[in-house]
Amino acid sequence: MAVVVQNIPRADAATIAGLATAGVATVHEAQGRIGCLASYMRPIYSGSRIAGSAVTISAPPGDNWMLHVAIEQLQAGDILVLAPNSPCDNGYFGDLLATSAMARGCQGLVIDAGVRDIRDLKEMGFPVWSKAVSAQGTVKETLGSVNVPIVCAGAMIDAGDIIVADDDGVCVVKYADAEAVLAAARLRMDAEEGKRRRLASGELGLDIYAMRDKLAAKGLKYV
Amino acid sequence: MAVVVQNIPRADAATIAGLATAGVATVHEAQGRIGCLASYMRPIYSGSRIAGSAVTISAPPGDNWMLHVAIEQLQAGDILVLAPNSPCDNGYFGDLLATSAMARGCQGLVIDAGVRDIRDLKEMGFPVWSKAVSAQGTVKETLGSVNVPIVCAGAMIDAGDIIVADDDGVCVVKYADAEAVLAAARLRMDAEEGKRRRLASGELGLDIYAMRDKLAAKGLKYV
Amino acid sequence: MAVVVQNIPRADAATIAGLATAGVATVHEAQGRIGCLASYMRPIYSGSRIAGSAVTISAPPGDNWMLHVAIEQLQAGDILVLAPNSPCDNGYFGDLLATSAMARGCQGLVIDAGVRDIRDLKEMGFPVWSKAVSAQGTVKETLGSVNVPIVCAGAMIDAGDIIVADDDGVCVVKYADAEAVLAAARLRMDAEEGKRRRLASGELGLDIYAMRDKLAAKGLKYV
Amino acid sequence: MAVVVQNIPRADAATIAGLATAGVATVHEAQGRIGCLASYMRPIYSGSRIAGSAVTISAPPGDNWMLHVAIEQLQAGDILVLAPNSPCDNGYFGDLLATSAMARGCQGLVIDAGVRDIRDLKEMGFPVWSKAVSAQGTVKETLGSVNVPIVCAGAMIDAGDIIVADDDGVCVVKYADAEAVLAAARLRMDAEEGKRRRLASGELGLDIYAMRDKLAAKGLKYV
Amino acid sequence: MAVVVQNIPRADAATIAGLATAGVATVHEAQGRIGCLASYMRPIYSGSRIAGSAVTISAPPGDNWMLHVAIEQLQAGDILVLAPNSPCDNGYFGDLLATSAMARGCQGLVIDAGVRDIRDLKEMGFPVWSKAVSAQGTVKETLGSVNVPIVCAGAMIDAGDIIVADDDGVCVVKYADAEAVLAAARLRMDAEEGKRRRLASGELGLDIYAMRDKLAAKGLKYV
Amino acid sequence: MAVVVQNIPRADAATIAGLATAGVATVHEAQGRIGCLASYMRPIYSGSRIAGSAVTISAPPGDNWMLHVAIEQLQAGDILVLAPNSPCDNGYFGDLLATSAMARGCQGLVIDAGVRDIRDLKEMGFPVWSKAVSAQGTVKETLGSVNVPIVCAGAMIDAGDIIVADDDGVCVVKYADAEAVLAAARLRMDAEEGKRRRLASGELGLDIYAMRDKLAAKGLKYV
Repeated sequence: MAVVVQNIPRADAATIAGLATAGVATVHEAQGRIGCLASYMRPIYSGSRIAGSAVTISAPPGDNWMLHVAIEQLQAGDILVLAPNSPCDNGYFGDLLATSAMARGCQGLVIDAGVRDIRDLKEMGFPVWSKAVSAQGTVKETLGSVNVPIVCAGAMIDAGDIIVADDDGVCVVKYADAEAVLAAARLRMDAEEGKRRRLASGELGLDIYAMRDKLAAKGLKYV
Repeated sequence: MAVVVQNIPRADAATIAGLATAGVATVHEAQGRIGCLASYMRPIYSGSRIAGSAVTISAPPGDNWMLHVAIEQLQAGDILVLAPNSPCDNGYFGDLLATSAMARGCQGLVIDAGVRDIRDLKEMGFPVWSKAVSAQGTVKETLGSVNVPIVCAGAMIDAGDIIVADDDGVCVVKYADAEAVLAAARLRMDAEEGKRRRLASGELGLDIYAMRDKLAAKGLKYV
Repeated sequence: MAVVVQNIPRADAATIAGLATAGVATVHEAQGRIGCLASYMRPIYSGSRIAGSAVTISAPPGDNWMLHVAIEQLQAGDILVLAPNSPCDNGYFGDLLATSAMARGCQGLVIDAGVRDIRDLKEMGFPVWSKAVSAQGTVKETLGSVNVPIVCAGAMIDAGDIIVADDDGVCVVKYADAEAVLAAARLRMDAEEGKRRRLASGELGLDIYAMRDKLAAKGLKYV
Repeated sequence: MAVVVQNIPRADAATIAGLATAGVATVHEAQGRIGCLASYMRPIYSGSRIAGSAVTISAPPGDNWMLHVAIEQLQAGDILVLAPNSPCDNGYFGDLLATSAMARGCQGLVIDAGVRDIRDLKEMGFPVWSKAVSAQGTVKETLGSVNVPIVCAGAMIDAGDIIVADDDGVCVVKYADAEAVLAAARLRMDAEEGKRRRLASGELGLDIYAMRDKLAAKGLKYV
Repeated sequence: MAVVVQNIPRADAATIAGLATAGVATVHEAQGRIGCLASYMRPIYSGSRIAGSAVTISAPPGDNWMLHVAIEQLQAGDILVLAPNSPCDNGYFGDLLATSAMARGCQGLVIDAGVRDIRDLKEMGFPVWSKAVSAQGTVKETLGSVNVPIVCAGAMIDAGDIIVADDDGVCVVKYADAEAVLAAARLRMDAEEGKRRRLASGELGLDIYAMRDKLAAKGLKYV
Repeated sequence: MAVVVQNIPRADAATIAGLATAGVATVHEAQGRIGCLASYMRPIYSGSRIAGSAVTISAPPGDNWMLHVAIEQLQAGDILVLAPNSPCDNGYFGDLLATSAMARGCQGLVIDAGVRDIRDLKEMGFPVWSKAVSAQGTVKETLGSVNVPIVCAGAMIDAGDIIVADDDGVCVVKYADAEAVLAAARLRMDAEEGKRRRLASGELGLDIYAMRDKLAAKGLKYV
């Protein structure tokens, strides 16, 4: 049951870069309001905005052995995504693993568990989105799998799916949908620009989106 | 059941400004240790300290339609306060709504749910205290109410009550109590100044507050 | 049952300083992966790294009286450690108590409850690791104990144990183990330096730690 | 700030009995889907269904003194409703207090905190809806208030409001709305009876409620 | 994006019945310790043990419209499985929907949200595993999907996968693995019978499983 | 660091039996309101009331190997007490381990993690107090320790301490205090009997405990 899948698909770099520019909230909306990981996944420091292909890890609770295995599978621009197979907040990952991952071109880590050495990680510029910060160490005794489908913080992620992460959290785009989602995200960003200007001038959403009649039809009363 | 109350009371600007200066902890103590919202309500960025009249919103889970309705009711200096009618961590509010609210003079948002676009909100200088940060979007299908009494993060809030919010969290002052609470807060701040100097000089609270006899009477033993 | 223990052991200053330099994650590993407090214990601001002798407080929920008693027991370099005797998130501690504790040379506070005035505490440079930030005040009615053994955030702490705290959280080192743990931590730091260089050069943990055979023996398959 | 309000309104017994018969889910729907306490409020044993006038208690964390005060205010058929003024799971209430409350005709307790002696309470037939079961005892040192407005498990409750509680949880009906809500609940129960028969015979809600066109109009696709 | 998939695979009845007999813990182990839903999924009453084909529902928070749509897709023996697309504890399902589902031969419901009318459901013999019991009602305004892949309480579930549920919780078996898992479960049950007799006679697991040497080799010390 | 302590103290059987009769709430009060484990520790079925000497286990997350080791250390009447060294809700224990433990005379299990096969355990009459019910299995790869001091659900427990557990939860009595606590518990039970009769007759706690003057002195107002 413990496998390492060595060949995974990766979207092209320009598409991935476009998704990073769009950011989590826009990408999530552009693909029909799906793909967000649970809101408890928070960045260890603010200000990062990345996108990359997911190298997925299914790991036992309290065991980070598979991270070493996964790092060998990384290509430049990838993002490590780890889900423990039952809830765990241990610190699976710290500055040594980050050093190794960065040497392979890894952009960051998304982990439904804990991370440590966060001051070092911030200094190194290696962003992490995690459920917890914890110094509690792990063992290397039990196998897991790399590049298999996982559920991470409530979202289904296949190896090669595109992870987008910023201060708003983390969103996953299915590999096959990447280009269509980027196109939709760009349309959305263009449309928002005009709305932003109108709203900034004091015009109301009630009028811009023609909501007054619908609200009245639903029965809203002003008193 | 879905109503928008259009006329709400507002305390005078000087009183509100005084409460902002006092800050959450002092205001909370000054009114007899009441009014704090639950401690999970955290600012999306640190360093803000605001006070304003509450424009309240009762919204369904996953539906932010009423925010558009509420924004029309805002006057300069108001604070939006949203409570979902059952627990929800969706991102009801982002940079477009903030743009609109700021155009009406709104100072900030208190929301017992999620918020998104937090990097933009920080850049815009629009502070939010929330239960979660989440990119998960919402719909506009079901009515709620504006400026009705709500329970937000465990506190009863009527439209027009004064919201005070800073890095310590959020506190509500009832409209009718605003002046008395401000007066009590000022007395408290004056009294604290002297205590602070004495404590800084090494004098002990045990002596300043004459606690030793009371502790002994209760039975405290030194061993 | 309410006692204040006035004489507690303290490790020597050089050992404590060495543990501070090592930091939480290294100290935790060096003593055999024990001693971490629960991961919900977070600093109110980032960037502090301290170590000191624990002055412990067992307090009732919602009652901060014993903090005044404990402050008298502080010596320069100590760290206050408070555990409520049942779960509580009230704000037991704020800027006045911090002023008093700093006047006694206290380095910081670890509290399995809430803290307030966090903007002031940051300006004063008084770090706190806590379960919550809360302005909710407390009373001074019921006794607790000072310098007795406590369970704080899941860890057993005796007065005089060494507390190490940084951005990764909090770890406790038993008084009797302090020197041995420091020695082990130094060995660990030395060993890590070499590994960090090798990993940074692109060498894999799989090879540095000779994991490939063990993984294969356990049954890991590459596909 | 610590008061005992001695005269509270009470709905008439027949109305209250009718609400008990309707039960929590029906009453909640009948009043427009409002009034439910948080879902963590669970009965200590199953099978009870009660309604009664609320005698409210606002208590400090870890202090059950006000329960003794509140018991004197009970009339036959009343329900005690306690909210701590900050989160607490202590066991405020056990068999002795239940003995006293039952002697005054009290029907049960709703408490946003803990309860103990639950085996005795079950044998005595005194139902409790609580956030926790806990043997952790409390003190009698700090005042609270009786029969003041409280927020209990997220719901606003005034003394004299009608509490309905059963295996589905707890719902509050405002005193002034009791008769109208009962009338609406009875209409709802009558209407449900016919629907239940049709559904039991295999007819679909899609047809009974004429949903197919609306679903299609919204865009639902069958594939 | 809102679709109803009308044709789903279903394992044969004998296989499903065999999995029900094996129960959750055995099935989970037999398929390599995978497939458990989160431990917060608890039965509303004890003593049920069922297995059936999943009819899946992805629903918005606070909106139970899709349950009506899903019921039409049920065949005898199926189990409804609902996941909200963001966390929600509302009571999506009660006695009327259960009446309708039972009329179609449905065996039970697994819902990562709330359920109500639980006394009625127990009397009807309709078991439910849920995250919450809540009377809080829902609306019928927003579409979701039926028989699409969902993540329910942390587990990936495709329509037609086999759900096994009993007092230990809920486990999912992929449709394609059903027969192999049943075979493995039967081997496991046979093997356990002999072990149970030996353990009951006082023989130790240390000896039956020959653990003493492995423990010593790992370094376990008896003192 | 992984040790099995083979000789532990045990209180005499009559004392332990007396503590079982007193029950958790009375024992907790009799020893000065200390010793309760966290309120999330709930029995898997109601109606048990046991006391026994603790055989303690410190185990890694997701690894139940040490349970086999601990069972060899059991003597008749003992209670197994397991704490994972970081939070975990896996099902460490099921019917086979219970069969083995019962063969050694073990009375029950207290586990700050998960348990499974709970229907079997109920039929066997083997009570368990746990944080979770979970079918999620564990491995046998990493050592822990047996009969060392542990923190279990927030309480310090040494091997040989007396565990008392019933429907109210779990309480620990230090080995050295067992007889004194039993004596105090008996006094308390005797005193409660008289109070119960007076309360049942309608006399108020306000009068029995002479609270009225103290309440007035604190400032309670009747309005």
